[in-house]
Amino acid sequence: MNDQFRGVFPYLITPVGKDGIVNRNVFHQLVDHLIDSGVHGLVVLGSTGEFPYLTDAQRSAAVEAVVSAARGRVPTIAGVYHASIADAIRQAKDYERMGIQGILAIMDSYFPVTQEQICSYFSAIARSVSVPIVMYTNPRFSKIDLSVESYEKLAQVENIRYFKDASGNTGKLLTIMSRLGDRIKAFSASANIPLCVMMFGGAGWMAGPACIIPKQSVRLYDLCRDKKWDEAIALQKRLWEVNRIFTKYNLAACIKTGLRVQGFDVGDPIPPLARLNETEESEIRKVMLDIEKLNERIER
Amino acid sequence: MNDQFRGVFPYLITPVGKDGIVNRNVFHQLVDHLIDSGVHGLVVLGSTGEFPYLTDAQRSAAVEAVVSAARGRVPTIAGVYHASIADAIRQAKDYERMGIQGILAIMDSYFPVTQEQICSYFSAIARSVSVPIVMYTNPRFSKIDLSVESYEKLAQVENIRYFKDASGNTGKLLTIMSRLGDRIKAFSASANIPLCVMMFGGAGWMAGPACIIPKQSVRLYDLCRDKKWDEAIALQKRLWEVNRIFTKYNLAACIKTGLRVQGFDVGDPIPPLARLNETEESEIRKVMLDIEKLNERIER
Amino acid sequence: MNDQFRGVFPYLITPVGKDGIVNRNVFHQLVDHLIDSGVHGLVVLGSTGEFPYLTDAQRSAAVEAVVSAARGRVPTIAGVYHASIADAIRQAKDYERMGIQGILAIMDSYFPVTQEQICSYFSAIARSVSVPIVMYTNPRFSKIDLSVESYEKLAQVENIRYFKDASGNTGKLLTIMSRLGDRIKAFSASANIPLCVMMFGGAGWMAGPACIIPKQSVRLYDLCRDKKWDEAIALQKRLWEVNRIFTKYNLAACIKTGLRVQGFDVGDPIPPLARLNETEESEIRKVMLDIEKLNERIER
Amino acid sequence: MNDQFRGVFPYLITPVGKDGIVNRNVFHQLVDHLIDSGVHGLVVLGSTGEFPYLTDAQRSAAVEAVVSAARGRVPTIAGVYHASIADAIRQAKDYERMGIQGILAIMDSYFPVTQEQICSYFSAIARSVSVPIVMYTNPRFSKIDLSVESYEKLAQVENIRYFKDASGNTGKLLTIMSRLGDRIKAFSASANIPLCVMMFGGAGWMAGPACIIPKQSVRLYDLCRDKKWDEAIALQKRLWEVNRIFTKYNLAACIKTGLRVQGFDVGDPIPPLARLNETEESEIRKVMLDIEKLNERIER
Repeated sequence: MNDQFRGVFPYLITPVGKDGIVNRNVFHQLVDHLIDSGVHGLVVLGSTGEFPYLTDAQRSAAVEAVVSAARGRVPTIAGVYHASIADAIRQAKDYERMGIQGILAIMDSYFPVTQEQICSYFSAIARSVSVPIVMYTNPRFSKIDLSVESYEKLAQVENIRYFKDASGNTGKLLTIMSRLGDRIKAFSASANIPLCVMMFGGAGWMAGPACIIPKQSVRLYDLCRDKKWDEAIALQKRLWEVNRIFTKYNLAACIKTGLRVQGFDVGDPIPPLARLNETEESEIRKVMLDIEKLNERIER
Repeated sequence: MNDQFRGVFPYLITPVGKDGIVNRNVFHQLVDHLIDSGVHGLVVLGSTGEFPYLTDAQRSAAVEAVVSAARGRVPTIAGVYHASIADAIRQAKDYERMGIQGILAIMDSYFPVTQEQICSYFSAIARSVSVPIVMYTNPRFSKIDLSVESYEKLAQVENIRYFKDASGNTGKLLTIMSRLGDRIKAFSASANIPLCVMMFGGAGWMAGPACIIPKQSVRLYDLCRDKKWDEAIALQKRLWEVNRIFTKYNLAACIKTGLRVQGFDVGDPIPPLARLNETEESEIRKVMLDIEKLNERIER
Repeated sequence: MNDQFRGVFPYLITPVGKDGIVNRNVFHQLVDHLIDSGVHGLVVLGSTGEFPYLTDAQRSAAVEAVVSAARGRVPTIAGVYHASIADAIRQAKDYERMGIQGILAIMDSYFPVTQEQICSYFSAIARSVSVPIVMYTNPRFSKIDLSVESYEKLAQVENIRYFKDASGNTGKLLTIMSRLGDRIKAFSASANIPLCVMMFGGAGWMAGPACIIPKQSVRLYDLCRDKKWDEAIALQKRLWEVNRIFTKYNLAACIKTGLRVQGFDVGDPIPPLARLNETEESEIRKVMLDIEKLNERIER
Repeated sequence: MNDQFRGVFPYLITPVGKDGIVNRNVFHQLVDHLIDSGVHGLVVLGSTGEFPYLTDAQRSAAVEAVVSAARGRVPTIAGVYHASIADAIRQAKDYERMGIQGILAIMDSYFPVTQEQICSYFSAIARSVSVPIVMYTNPRFSKIDLSVESYEKLAQVENIRYFKDASGNTGKLLTIMSRLGDRIKAFSASANIPLCVMMFGGAGWMAGPACIIPKQSVRLYDLCRDKKWDEAIALQKRLWEVNRIFTKYNLAACIKTGLRVQGFDVGDPIPPLARLNETEESEIRKVMLDIEKLNERIER
């Protein structure tokens, strides 16, 4: 098993019509556009993909659409999410069978859970499939978090190869990378500054805003890979303002708005999630213009 | 639409085997036992029923088993739970079609939600069915909570008739009962003291421990209904210690342990939830002996 | 040491001028008015007294004013508050020397603290004086909370005789009263429903709103003492709406507004705390009219 | 007013004897040692200095000791901390009169506060003195936090020149630096990775661990200033493990332990804060050995 996952992995939105049907065409257009822009992989059913708001059938339809759209050009990863181990395993196996090349394991909870129970969830998913696992924790939106000791334990499981901690606490990522960097690699989330994670050995980033700024994201990744730190700092500063606007309101609503501006018929967020209001939308439109200019400069 | 829901409604556990199959026989035994003990209704797929840990198919099997076991002797209510309005409506309609007589509406979330979004969730479910709705919020385990203003708005929806707030904050319940007591009735949760809720006009209680102490719970309800406050205070004090032990550890694990001691083959909690450890189990066993004695006194 | 503390103990506001001087005259007027209204004791330097916003000199001036105004007619209790044990002991000894008859022990914190450290704080204060101690915890505003086990330990200290838990979680109070009711007595806070606490053996209540509705509060206490539960329930319902309005915004600002309406020259909250805005003030004024009517009915 | 504050500013511990007396000798030894090691400034009465646990008199004694020990060789900054504006102003003026060259403004709270109230606190302190102000917020230990909009407002106040946000959320720092970097400069806290803050234009760092590793900290600062990023990354990785151990337990207790190992008679934390237990102390001793080795390498 090589280190197949590196670079920029946009978190895809899930285009769902008012009738509840997942829009395959939009997925195909978006996937083609992102791969043409140079991204290194794709993640379906991440936070930006509104995974908690989808039915089982919608989730499967989304995975199927992305796998068929990607046609193996870049690795595809699918989110798996439940409170019970049994259902999470069922999802992971289904998606592996459908051709996905990695699992983003996310844990739901209701009652308080122990670190031991969290570890049993992640390791059971890992053992049920043969593709690599990215463990995803987001203490801002859920009660699930992993201690450094739990990371040490989980890094022993063969196909647990990556983690993505969306706490925004870069220090914790540095601690884990320092201790376990040869066993599990970190992906930055949109709550983290990708450059800071890359500097200390990160594998790349998985984030919604990369759907909107794929070329600029790839450019930043290349600068980091080549250790051109001064140029990377300058570009990161510009991209951070874009990232900030896109994470200021509901992330899925922001990214869907941005993609609509770019001409993708992505539809609205899934109710009770709602479209941005007019003031918020105009903020997004304004930042989209800045992105265009930034893009032209990068392409020249 | 009459006030059909009043009194003691035990939150049923969900007996699931290691193979994932819902055990109909145990449901039938438990339902018969509870109805024979005098309970006024039954709730399937509440917190004690481990609703977040069940698959769609398991949830439907549980609802079907309880409806068929109750045979209309007492009203049955089923929990509905999702982050999206569409899936919650689908569940509510399915359960109504299966013969359930009330819906306990519970909202999952991931991204932060506004009061407006929460209200749209509850009112959409209510409008999709004709049976009465019990709105259930539990700010200890979830991010969903309702402001007094939202209660005022939701109480206008015709079949939103009851609410159950598991915050343990009796003052908030008193505020809502004082303002809206003629439109929506309160059910106490195991985090509240039933007597305090009854005193101010509550309809009864919905709680896991009532599975274990049905007769004593009914006795307390009768004392409250007859305004025999001094006797009610004395019995409530004794029952509170039972309630406390059963809510000290994971609620579902505690109730399953207690029912196993009483001879019901309820199985284990759903992984990653786990059985109580030995020390915890012996605490439960000890309180079960006290319950036996208390029961004998009530029956005499 | 007898059970000298029982009944209604208003939490006094602290009248401080723009020059920082504590207004003795207002304290004298307010104390006379409250004692004439039948309250059973007085607490200076509670939350309503804005204790965290006062300097050491202002705190001493407030204690001195209240002791001299009360002239031993009812017991007086003073709040003691610091993060360090040494300074809390110094305050407690000073106030005892000034003639205070009880200490309300409140713990400040900054770094996370263990239950052992919290216990050492409360027991050290108790051992430094001979007057009874009321332990006050308010998990809504501070990080300090006591486990049931810590209550059991602290109840062994001879002059720790009372506690006031402002969590609003009546169930926790019932647990402690059931286990330790013969050693330490509970006082209700404005976050709790006094009637619920009294029913299970509470000693009374300590709360800011009792400054505004002293007679009605004493009437409710008398009904509880005489176990006239139906009348108590009816009065409690009416008083709860008053309590709710007074705790809806900043408590000290609300009580100061209410007392100003009643003719006491109490001044403004201590900056950066601020007066209520006009909408909020008119809400207070409206509820003050209801109180007048309620009062007339009680006096007739 | 020039940018006089740049570089490494250790947060000094406060050596207090069991008799409550502040130990001037230890302050002088420590200050000499740190200045000899090349630090750029000193902060007395920061978190590491246990400011919430000190009396007014102890705080003044600490400020006096540090000013007299530093003899103007490096700038000295003192923490100011209260819930009321009046007392905070009094402290700031006192310390300015005693010769301190900057104020670290920290806000205590009890009741919930609005952004407007927080802004009024910081700006009132700033206007009361003529030395520069460093605003310090630590949402991990207190309820006080500043929105980006509040930073924009406060940056207009002439002598509010620096801020230190100890949230560990580097993204927020980057947002503020990007928008306000020409008006207010960021200092990193021990919860942040100094290198990440420096890269985006930070002024330096203020942190307890710099008491223990002054030379290595200065070395890291020099590498950042000279934009030798690859060397800085390598050194930062090594120093982060030290930082992690020192912030794993109570910060003041850890730094006092480390300084005791280095031969400074700093005494124990202020009760109820407690010394580390034996296991924790041996962890600190172990990391001290690594530091020695690291130090030798840097000096060579």
